[in-house]
Amino acid sequence: MVKRLLHAEKGLSYEYREEDLRNKSQLLLDSNPIHKQIPVLIHNGKPICESSIIVQYIDQVWKDEAPLLPSDSYARARARFWVHFIDQKLYQSGKKLYTTKGEEHEASRNEFIECLKLLQGELGDKPYFGGETFGYLDVSLIPFYSWFQAYETYGNLNFDHECPKLIAWAKRCIQNKGSVSNSLPDLPKILGFVQYMRKKYGNEE
Amino acid sequence: MVKRLLHAEKGLSYEYREEDLRNKSQLLLDSNPIHKQIPVLIHNGKPICESSIIVQYIDQVWKDEAPLLPSDSYARARARFWVHFIDQKLYQSGKKLYTTKGEEHEASRNEFIECLKLLQGELGDKPYFGGETFGYLDVSLIPFYSWFQAYETYGNLNFDHECPKLIAWAKRCIQNKGSVSNSLPDLPKILGFVQYMRKKYGNEE
Repeated sequence: MVKRLLHAEKGLSYEYREEDLRNKSQLLLDSNPIHKQIPVLIHNGKPICESSIIVQYIDQVWKDEAPLLPSDSYARARARFWVHFIDQKLYQSGKKLYTTKGEEHEASRNEFIECLKLLQGELGDKPYFGGETFGYLDVSLIPFYSWFQAYETYGNLNFDHECPKLIAWAKRCIQNKGSVSNSLPDLPKILGFVQYMRKKYGNEE
Repeated sequence: MVKRLLHAEKGLSYEYREEDLRNKSQLLLDSNPIHKQIPVLIHNGKPICESSIIVQYIDQVWKDEAPLLPSDSYARARARFWVHFIDQKLYQSGKKLYTTKGEEHEASRNEFIECLKLLQGELGDKPYFGGETFGYLDVSLIPFYSWFQAYETYGNLNFDHECPKLIAWAKRCIQNKGSVSNSLPDLPKILGFVQYMRKKYGNEE
């Protein structure tokens, strides 16, 4: 999504480097020696790590183009709260969907749906989490949409039924923001990964 | 530390409410229904949750008094990176110090020391993480100092030996910022908690 942000929202150009996470480049290891994870943005020769921190950095440096964080302090704190929730709760409970089985898997399904319903509650009847415009929380949640599709395929889940407003939001982002659909994580790759992890954790029927 | 911030750094007054975490108040449950955790700041009748978000909120609302976040975008991203590191890595590896035993405990000791050494590297030869002034990363790390003392008591650790510059930083904060010593978490309480948890997890000699 950093790609999308730089290019589409802020009108910036950049050089994109794909990483093979099974064989990490020296550039990645040097740029994020603590976590050795993507994404990393290198700007003026300096690395910025962690997606939520990158988004805030971009939004501060190129602040005149399509601001993502709300200017109001309370709305900003609230958006940060939900981005933190996505990083922690949604990510963790999503991971459990393909690393657990039996009762634990059933519990993780309920937990994941509960997370999505909470997010749907925060969206309410607004077109975007940012209100009338696509904002910080939208940009942080939309990459998970490809994962939702993978979880539906393998997880006996039906998000259209469980949280229709949230799915309508994701479709709205894709439809109205052409840039989103071009930069979502690649669905076949994610399907392959989830299938591989399910096998690894003995979760394949 | 929210207390300290509001009062000492920003010169604000507030009403402080202690929470009994074994019997949470309705106000806490209503203010932070998702995580049901402290701290929560209630300002203009609206709750703000998660300590790092509260600090950023306070810093934005009362921005003229002793700014905590650096104004430079890169320095700001860097401070955010390390606060995230404290929230995740330092907190998690500290918790393992009293919930594990045997080899796992040994590994968590090494991991915890490694975290402190990384933070010491980020401090370098500066008096504070914020440079010449006490900043966002200082305010986020200093509450852990009481925990360091508890870990030394129960964990066969000697931080003065392992990371002398970091301990000198903590002592500097306490000495130069009178407000810090008044608002650090209560050491006897933490010692009691760590002792209780060690017993619970069968980690008591």
